[in-house]
Amino acid sequence: MSVLVVGSVAYDSVTTPADSREDALGGSATYFSIAASRFTNVSLIAVIGEDFDERHIALLRSHGIDVSGLRRHNGKTFRWAGEYYSSDLNARTTLDTQLNVFAEFSPQLSAEQRRCPYLFLANIDPELQLDVLRQMETRPNLVALDSMNFWIDGKRDALNEIVRNADVLFMDEDETRDFARESNLVTAAKRIMAMGPSAVVVKRGAHGATLFNGDAIFSAPAFPLDHVADPTGAGDTFAAGFIGYIAATGDKTPDGYRRAAVLGSVMGSFCVQDFSMDRILTLTIEEIEDRFRAFTALTSFKGLPEGASLLGG
Amino acid sequence: MSVLVVGSVAYDSVTTPADSREDALGGSATYFSIAASRFTNVSLIAVIGEDFDERHIALLRSHGIDVSGLRRHNGKTFRWAGEYYSSDLNARTTLDTQLNVFAEFSPQLSAEQRRCPYLFLANIDPELQLDVLRQMETRPNLVALDSMNFWIDGKRDALNEIVRNADVLFMDEDETRDFARESNLVTAAKRIMAMGPSAVVVKRGAHGATLFNGDAIFSAPAFPLDHVADPTGAGDTFAAGFIGYIAATGDKTPDGYRRAAVLGSVMGSFCVQDFSMDRILTLTIEEIEDRFRAFTALTSFKGLPEGASLLGG
Repeated sequence: MSVLVVGSVAYDSVTTPADSREDALGGSATYFSIAASRFTNVSLIAVIGEDFDERHIALLRSHGIDVSGLRRHNGKTFRWAGEYYSSDLNARTTLDTQLNVFAEFSPQLSAEQRRCPYLFLANIDPELQLDVLRQMETRPNLVALDSMNFWIDGKRDALNEIVRNADVLFMDEDETRDFARESNLVTAAKRIMAMGPSAVVVKRGAHGATLFNGDAIFSAPAFPLDHVADPTGAGDTFAAGFIGYIAATGDKTPDGYRRAAVLGSVMGSFCVQDFSMDRILTLTIEEIEDRFRAFTALTSFKGLPEGASLLGG
Repeated sequence: MSVLVVGSVAYDSVTTPADSREDALGGSATYFSIAASRFTNVSLIAVIGEDFDERHIALLRSHGIDVSGLRRHNGKTFRWAGEYYSSDLNARTTLDTQLNVFAEFSPQLSAEQRRCPYLFLANIDPELQLDVLRQMETRPNLVALDSMNFWIDGKRDALNEIVRNADVLFMDEDETRDFARESNLVTAAKRIMAMGPSAVVVKRGAHGATLFNGDAIFSAPAFPLDHVADPTGAGDTFAAGFIGYIAATGDKTPDGYRRAAVLGSVMGSFCVQDFSMDRILTLTIEEIEDRFRAFTALTSFKGLPEGASLLGG
């Protein structure tokens, strides 16, 4: 196993302008595992309830995902219900959150998991994220982290501590600003990198993502789609493309991080094309590579060599 | 003269989180003229009031702008007051609009202006935009158009007519959706191109711009800035970079349009760095070319040649 992910496994009820689904497979660790399994071995730490469908465990297994860390507790599986309402689906309302067994989540890593070279701490309580990191026998090659406003407001000290120990931080624009207490994104990202991470990935939803990596900034657009079904899970699927690329290639150079960001955007774009995990479950590496190439077409233009003039003549 | 612009000349009172300015030089035609004068000859059609400062006319002249079409009427110059309030300055409130002499604007083109090869119809009443186009002796090489929700809601028939006769349409995301009556941007842009224009440029403010040109889509990011002073005029300055590039080079190929979009984003990024026209007034072609090169660094990544594998091996 090459990437260890700790996060949620859930059943989501989602309404978008396109359609709606009840109790569809969801959760940050689920999206991440399925998507990252396209690139590398994945081991999952999460908790499920008595109602969790055996067929969904079989589905994870069929993608080569190590589910030995999937613990079943008494009670119901984590449930989330939400609605996306803006025309570009960038805005959503949470209608219902039932933590259920997730409220008692206490990640326990196996001996093998403690030696995983890549670690993704999906959006959970930063105290649990810290607990997982402390269980690692050796410091992983790469520690990546997702978080959200709820923890920025409620558990800033623990969040600061885990951010200081992470290599890559994923946050959306507002979260980046709130966490850094700075309205300018460039300054906010620099401030966060000064705490420890070598890279900050600012997720912009339908506008793509911006990678801050040392002094370099890389802009990865979102892939233009003529139909978006459901944005749920796009952020974790982005992270799966990003970390999956680095885990599969070991490439932590600036060029590697840029390709990782593009692959993140590629994977996120597939995720939103159907509800739940439906689109990423059937993805082939050829489809992924074709869309990766389409990003070159989407972003390339004739540059201006040093000494050349823009207006010719 | 190579580009003819028809639009507003105004005095703006603007408040942003950075600072505020009263009665600063503004207006779509002013921003466009000053910015486009870096690349090509510009002729301006607009109306000003008795209070318009002679020094501002001298300023336009000093940039080589033909101001023979700047008519002075009895009354006051168009005035706009607004405030930008969101953290990324993407949202604004209009506090006051005084049309003044602009209410009676009736563009009259000189014989020379009727033969201008490039035409930018800034955001004014589409009936006036149609009137200007009808005055052209020969159909320009390129007709570009800006508009806004006010005209989409209030003068759709005239707007439809002028869009049918334009080559390039600039609109923001919501305007594109509203005008096309389609929430998906890709489909909306296609629908607009089916009316006539060969290109639609969707302006996304701090998120950059998306160029739709036939079947091709090009994503131009916004340049990441660690200080944004005032977003006023960024859209017209973007248009000036775009059309200025095509007017200066005559390059209407797909590659030319992509470079034009990058130069638009380059110019827009300078515009927002200071209040009013202060930053673009002092811009050198070297500064513009340096930032154009920085867009290559901002967007480039190692592509995937056909037949190559993303994960190596």
